[in-house]
Amino acid sequence: MAASVAVENLNPKVLKCEYAVRGEIVIHAQRLQQQLQTQPGSLPFDEILYCNIGNPQSLGQQPVTFFREVLALCDHPCLLEKEETKSLFSADAISRAKQILSSIPGRATGAYSHSQGIKGLRDAIAAGIASRDGFPANADDIFLTDGASPGVHMMMQLLIRNEKDGILCPIPQYPLYSASIALHGGALVPYYLDEKTGWGLEISDLKKQLEDARSKGIDVRALVVINPGNPTGQVLAEDNQCDIVKFCKNEGLVLLADEVYQENIYVDNKKFSSFKKIARSMGYGEDDLPLVSFQSVSKGYYGECGKRGGYMEITGFSAPVREQIYKISSVNLCSNITGQILASLVMNPPKVGDESYASYKAEKDGILQSLARRAKALEDAFNNLEGFSCNKAEGAMYLFPQILLPQKAIEAAKAAKKAPDAFYALRLLESTGIVVVPGSGFGQVPGTWHIRCTILPQEDKIPAVITRFKAFHEAFMAEYRD
Amino acid sequence: MAASVAVENLNPKVLKCEYAVRGEIVIHAQRLQQQLQTQPGSLPFDEILYCNIGNPQSLGQQPVTFFREVLALCDHPCLLEKEETKSLFSADAISRAKQILSSIPGRATGAYSHSQGIKGLRDAIAAGIASRDGFPANADDIFLTDGASPGVHMMMQLLIRNEKDGILCPIPQYPLYSASIALHGGALVPYYLDEKTGWGLEISDLKKQLEDARSKGIDVRALVVINPGNPTGQVLAEDNQCDIVKFCKNEGLVLLADEVYQENIYVDNKKFSSFKKIARSMGYGEDDLPLVSFQSVSKGYYGECGKRGGYMEITGFSAPVREQIYKISSVNLCSNITGQILASLVMNPPKVGDESYASYKAEKDGILQSLARRAKALEDAFNNLEGFSCNKAEGAMYLFPQILLPQKAIEAAKAAKKAPDAFYALRLLESTGIVVVPGSGFGQVPGTWHIRCTILPQEDKIPAVITRFKAFHEAFMAEYRD
Repeated sequence: MAASVAVENLNPKVLKCEYAVRGEIVIHAQRLQQQLQTQPGSLPFDEILYCNIGNPQSLGQQPVTFFREVLALCDHPCLLEKEETKSLFSADAISRAKQILSSIPGRATGAYSHSQGIKGLRDAIAAGIASRDGFPANADDIFLTDGASPGVHMMMQLLIRNEKDGILCPIPQYPLYSASIALHGGALVPYYLDEKTGWGLEISDLKKQLEDARSKGIDVRALVVINPGNPTGQVLAEDNQCDIVKFCKNEGLVLLADEVYQENIYVDNKKFSSFKKIARSMGYGEDDLPLVSFQSVSKGYYGECGKRGGYMEITGFSAPVREQIYKISSVNLCSNITGQILASLVMNPPKVGDESYASYKAEKDGILQSLARRAKALEDAFNNLEGFSCNKAEGAMYLFPQILLPQKAIEAAKAAKKAPDAFYALRLLESTGIVVVPGSGFGQVPGTWHIRCTILPQEDKIPAVITRFKAFHEAFMAEYRD
Repeated sequence: MAASVAVENLNPKVLKCEYAVRGEIVIHAQRLQQQLQTQPGSLPFDEILYCNIGNPQSLGQQPVTFFREVLALCDHPCLLEKEETKSLFSADAISRAKQILSSIPGRATGAYSHSQGIKGLRDAIAAGIASRDGFPANADDIFLTDGASPGVHMMMQLLIRNEKDGILCPIPQYPLYSASIALHGGALVPYYLDEKTGWGLEISDLKKQLEDARSKGIDVRALVVINPGNPTGQVLAEDNQCDIVKFCKNEGLVLLADEVYQENIYVDNKKFSSFKKIARSMGYGEDDLPLVSFQSVSKGYYGECGKRGGYMEITGFSAPVREQIYKISSVNLCSNITGQILASLVMNPPKVGDESYASYKAEKDGILQSLARRAKALEDAFNNLEGFSCNKAEGAMYLFPQILLPQKAIEAAKAAKKAPDAFYALRLLESTGIVVVPGSGFGQVPGTWHIRCTILPQEDKIPAVITRFKAFHEAFMAEYRD
């Protein structure tokens, strides 16, 4: 190997960055999957069940037909001129594809677009936001991105100057935030979600953490809020959101609102309200609060992770700052057009009266209702395991149960040089093929241990998942019970 | 506007970054385009002709039918079960789509893939590289990316620790490199391509620049070579490539080979050889040279810029370093699947005997032959303008003529607070609607002035482009001739 590049002389920010949802346990799972292929029967299970990541279609969720019809027609517009197409595609997919193509200069789905994304698609997204929120939205505020992650990186890149710039992040948090802050050399300023109150966000704790950080010389630039929560699955109450908005305004923080699970709500007494809607309802406008809302085609009922579509809606930034955001976007030219089109579709799906509406509605409701049932089944199952306690799955795609691990297990983990929850997750994988992410990848109150498990295995597999999990846990406890 | 975020407190690396191909002149062109829509007839031209960027389909180039057929079938796999599909799609597109879908776990084109990309697609790309080079290639060395740009950013992020880490870049260069180095806080170490010898790359100059940088305490980590050249259009001779490979090995540099124009060669006496082929032909293996080759679906005859597909092939890096590269890729989960599929198609297009072969070949040859004619026509036209001198367009998608600007024009530019070539490009835009990029955006020998103009306007428009350009230039010279 050429010696000029070695781990010792790489960018230390890269070395520092961690990303647990694709970390050690997942790499081990990939090895086991290969082993299952090359030596079938050599493991105590016959398939790997990836519950580590919100990737619905990898576990069998089917894409929404209307969306895929439109994508296929936009990919190969010649189809629109053929008679057979009318019998293969729904009429509204055909007309939507025509409308989208006509909004693209030269109908060129293979051309770089404006760096913020195709204007006509941003118009559709802005209209979707306005109809969701009841407040106007502007296509000029929309930046289409390859999924939500590049948008988050862009904002971190913009705000973080050095290790004295801090970003307030929930703990537990989705590790994209810790990874991005590490890559950009900033300081993660943690605030704890309160597990006892269903992962509540206490303004008093926020304030305390902010002051602590400031007293250490950290210039806190922004607050990240993930709503519905990842990995914690809670849905914020509107009065809590109002307090957060006020806090950001008073403290001069950018509010980075991760709203990618806005369609994933499973309880009747909660609903999604965007932070922009909350802020506008409070009478706050452009001058009061710099606010970024992230949305993605990967989540919701659509679950189109592989298409890498998403957007950020940016309000409350001055024109010169927006120019800088535009410049960073332009260095990567534009996000992929398929993802752009899909982002416009999820924000403007079929409406009552459209030919596809009934089938679209049935697909959407089927997926969301099934997710709600799966969330409840897993939540109940976890709560029936010795030492487990699991909050209600109100939204998103995950459960994040706490596990009271016996002292003997903690010592065994120490001997194996693993965090106790990583040790548990590894043993779970090796016994059952189920892949979960240890809580240490997300952050947790020191001395507590968790796992994050998606609710995404298909419904007919849930009973078997629960049975396997239960059998493993009982054996684990039998081995390590104090 | 909320005052907490202002240009003054943004990341200075972002402020420093410049990206001329989407800079001031393009933004002005977009304004003029809007004016043409709202007030037709208000400008001395009736359309904006974007010659600023290698974006073929935006200027009317049609996508290759086979590629789009496969994409549409993969986007909407239900089509594969319908009888009508056989009359709408070619048989080999249908069988290719089936083969691709069967290589995707669960046939899920909507799922996140492995962070390096779908294994089956990487196998196809590795086979394509091996067949191109005559040396083996390995799917584990392929990292699929959303176009070439994110791959370049990833390598800069990996290698640059601080402002004392340098990257050797050609001048003129494609501003992605200067932008990415600026964003990651490193030092661009320039080496000049020699305009007099057709943009030749002199090892003696490389060596001198390297030693200069080292004497200033710069730790030079890598050498960027763009072949075929952008913006300069030259194709390196093989013995020159051998010298570059030797230089990198001897000096312990990573060779970052931008090979996105590998299909774009317009002269009979030159052909493309990848740097990996050259290195392997010299007997250099994994231990001798860390080498990254960037490829993209945006260029070549395919020109699928909007699909954001590409890959890097990484050889000569140790396992621990490769793990870090994998980790950075995984933070963004994966590149878009449509782009991944397309990257596998361009590296494994229809073969003799396939149903689509004849039409595919005709489309490919038609595009490349037309590009060659357009390059020649524009090159001749430029060489006929007073004060212009333009090297031969051997490859890529650009011409980069030098313009001897009269002193009076230089002074007028100074009065307008513009670089002289930016002043020229702005006047050109305002008179003709033709958008080119001033040489100052790419770097040039101080005191010389250039523009970069793509060869991409459709062939039937080239005579009009030349006429408009000539009339403008004559008027400009009449106004400013000394």
